[in-house]
Amino acid sequence: MDHAYDKVFRGTAFTSGTPQEVSVWEDCLFCLDVEGVIRRILKPQDADYSRILEAYRDTERFRALAEGQYFLPGFIDLHIHAPQWAQAGTAMDIPLQDWLGTYTFPLESKYADLDFARKVYQDLVTTLLANGTTTALYFATIHKEASYLLAQICADKGQRGLVGKVVMDDKEQNPAYYRDESTKAALADTEEFIQRVQELNKSTKQGVYPVVTPRFIPSCTDEALTGLGELAKKYGTYIQSHCSESDWEHNYVLERMHKSDTFALHEMGLLQDKAVMAHAVFLSDEDADLFAETGTAIAHCPISNVCFSNGVLPAARFTQKGIDIGLGTDISGGFSPSLFDNIRQAVISSRMLEEGVDPSLEPPERGLPHSRIGANEAFYYATAGGGKSLSLPIGQLEENYVWDVQVIDVNAPNTRLPIFDSGLSMEDLLHKILFLSRPENIREVWVQGECVHKRI
Amino acid sequence: MDHAYDKVFRGTAFTSGTPQEVSVWEDCLFCLDVEGVIRRILKPQDADYSRILEAYRDTERFRALAEGQYFLPGFIDLHIHAPQWAQAGTAMDIPLQDWLGTYTFPLESKYADLDFARKVYQDLVTTLLANGTTTALYFATIHKEASYLLAQICADKGQRGLVGKVVMDDKEQNPAYYRDESTKAALADTEEFIQRVQELNKSTKQGVYPVVTPRFIPSCTDEALTGLGELAKKYGTYIQSHCSESDWEHNYVLERMHKSDTFALHEMGLLQDKAVMAHAVFLSDEDADLFAETGTAIAHCPISNVCFSNGVLPAARFTQKGIDIGLGTDISGGFSPSLFDNIRQAVISSRMLEEGVDPSLEPPERGLPHSRIGANEAFYYATAGGGKSLSLPIGQLEENYVWDVQVIDVNAPNTRLPIFDSGLSMEDLLHKILFLSRPENIREVWVQGECVHKRI
Ligand SMILES: [Zn+2]
Ligand SMILES: [Zn+2]
Repeated sequence: MDHAYDKVFRGTAFTSGTPQEVSVWEDCLFCLDVEGVIRRILKPQDADYSRILEAYRDTERFRALAEGQYFLPGFIDLHIHAPQWAQAGTAMDIPLQDWLGTYTFPLESKYADLDFARKVYQDLVTTLLANGTTTALYFATIHKEASYLLAQICADKGQRGLVGKVVMDDKEQNPAYYRDESTKAALADTEEFIQRVQELNKSTKQGVYPVVTPRFIPSCTDEALTGLGELAKKYGTYIQSHCSESDWEHNYVLERMHKSDTFALHEMGLLQDKAVMAHAVFLSDEDADLFAETGTAIAHCPISNVCFSNGVLPAARFTQKGIDIGLGTDISGGFSPSLFDNIRQAVISSRMLEEGVDPSLEPPERGLPHSRIGANEAFYYATAGGGKSLSLPIGQLEENYVWDVQVIDVNAPNTRLPIFDSGLSMEDLLHKILFLSRPENIREVWVQGECVHKRI
Repeated sequence: MDHAYDKVFRGTAFTSGTPQEVSVWEDCLFCLDVEGVIRRILKPQDADYSRILEAYRDTERFRALAEGQYFLPGFIDLHIHAPQWAQAGTAMDIPLQDWLGTYTFPLESKYADLDFARKVYQDLVTTLLANGTTTALYFATIHKEASYLLAQICADKGQRGLVGKVVMDDKEQNPAYYRDESTKAALADTEEFIQRVQELNKSTKQGVYPVVTPRFIPSCTDEALTGLGELAKKYGTYIQSHCSESDWEHNYVLERMHKSDTFALHEMGLLQDKAVMAHAVFLSDEDADLFAETGTAIAHCPISNVCFSNGVLPAARFTQKGIDIGLGTDISGGFSPSLFDNIRQAVISSRMLEEGVDPSLEPPERGLPHSRIGANEAFYYATAGGGKSLSLPIGQLEENYVWDVQVIDVNAPNTRLPIFDSGLSMEDLLHKILFLSRPENIREVWVQGECVHKRI
């Protein structure tokens, strides 16, 4: 008997098409080709359902979920500093500019040592997969070797990694022990890094991609910024940076450039469809419009913003403007490697923006009406929004999208979710999964049709 | 050979004495009596250390932690609605007064059914223990039988439970399907409940306690409130209620009583050293002073407050005023059964109160300076602060305190904490534990010297 599909999965899946609405594929068959792409989704009432089910059910190509298990799209972490995993959970008590100099640059400088880099990066990629993150857009460090090592580790462990060698070449702004040797070296290293990762991508099923990565305007010379814009164009790469993160950073750029981060980055050729800017809390309306026009995405990092941004991203308003938004952990500005935690905080922060925080103010003065987002929007950001931000066919479980999924088990032995009502709506069930899942509830993780994490 | 101690534990422990400072007992021996009370703590340099170690190390009375394992005090959940566990993770999108009528009262009314109650309560107590919560102050429902069942389940599973049969007798304010039959019945049921739980306590090693529990002023008649104050006095019981939770609730009481919740509750005899009031977000300075004077504690529920309180508790200011503060999950106003999650949100919310939320405001208008609390304070609230709030010798690992502990394993197989620096300070290590632990990292939980939860 011939088998047209490489693998067939049977189960119920949640997926987002628009920010507000979640779709449910109830007890469907998901038919994959050898590339790990969903070629067909069959509903129980479809004519071919029984035929396909019979043809595959007793083969090794078939996998059916058990009672209480559900497919969710794998999460897309749109902003994470891989080297900072070593300090996650500490040092969140001082302002951004001090935090960089006192903790973060000394730590990042240690990645000249490849053994240290290997130890941390392997642990991080494993941890992210165990948390359901199937794609991650990484800042590495200034070191081209260690940055390439991170791409290799993603390739080996089956995660879709987009990796940037960080550029910080300004001699005034960066410490001597941690900066690019020169502007020229920064650009040459970036170009070599791009070429090597594009080569590695050819042998990597799920894809690994180089990302042009100026740390942020304060750490780069104009020449480096412009040169990086040109490299991105020449090689068709992704771009990432930080934009309007905090009062300090936002004002620094205004002073130096006489314009906002957004307009400055645009001038350097750094805003485009494959560009992702972290934070963007302090965008003006004009800035936001330029994001929408250029197709530049925002990596919303709600946990990190609490400690380092002095404000909450008006996500609801920016979504209405048509800006692509995804979620980022921003390790270690954010302490958690889990996008479940960031989904929860995105909802929480938006509610706090809407209601306000200071009980001594009268309600009308306290908050900003219409700011809230719900669990559906946050789920969208973590999945479909991230996929759109990266212009990749990921983050949704639909035909012609890639099979990147996490299998959630609501009955996992030590962390059963509180479900006592057999009439629970599918939307309420999804909300329980989003608000209450632990890593233990993630039984399997698949990327591009391959199993990359499993709990027994 | 005679053994003076019932059990001896060896390991490193974290404990709080004051809100700002954490103490570390490094590689100490904790010697318990048969009651599960810590009689002696020996440091390695103490004269008796080797003698005691030799006497116990090869006996069944001895337990030594492995590398990477640490003792933390068990957490004290100072506010949780046990029946609402069934709806945790859903229905967080509507205001308090609608939420009660649409979701919560219909659910709570189902606890007339003891089979349903048993199923949910057993699952909840098991879940709390697995999350490191060794003591919980529960709201049950209006049903005396189901409320008693919750106390029994705590007694059986080894958790220290303080349980209240909820009183809501006002015929105007409560639906016919879910309220006490009459004021008289509410008081008689409460008295019977108190007597039965005090009886149960006699055979319960870790203690179970009855709690006088008017839901909140809006749901009770003046007569019931006064009667409950008298019952609390007569039987020396704990008292719990909600106080100044939201704009709506706070203003309702002002209108009916012509005074704040705090002064009204005080008049009814409901503020005292063994009283715990949930939320208290909208206390005035005079209210706060009355809390401090009467020894009344605040159950701070940071996750719940996001959705239902319209503001952030000024915890730093109230701590400075000398008010006892503990942490509560407020299931299901808060979605998470974990005090780790509430520690994180307490820190986050305080930072958002300090920095403000609305990026369109100038920094000086945005936030409330000096509002932040750090991880040390939040840890204190979840442990020592909860113990002081309940006037029980719990929440600290000191001589004459009870052995209620959780064993944290930073190397748990699937959730190893990111520790790569052998020179990490003990305080940074604690912060990593507080910000990054999952239930999987909690290997064992002990209450009153007995093991009540264990992961293999
Ligand atoms: Zn960042
Ligand atoms: Zn409550």
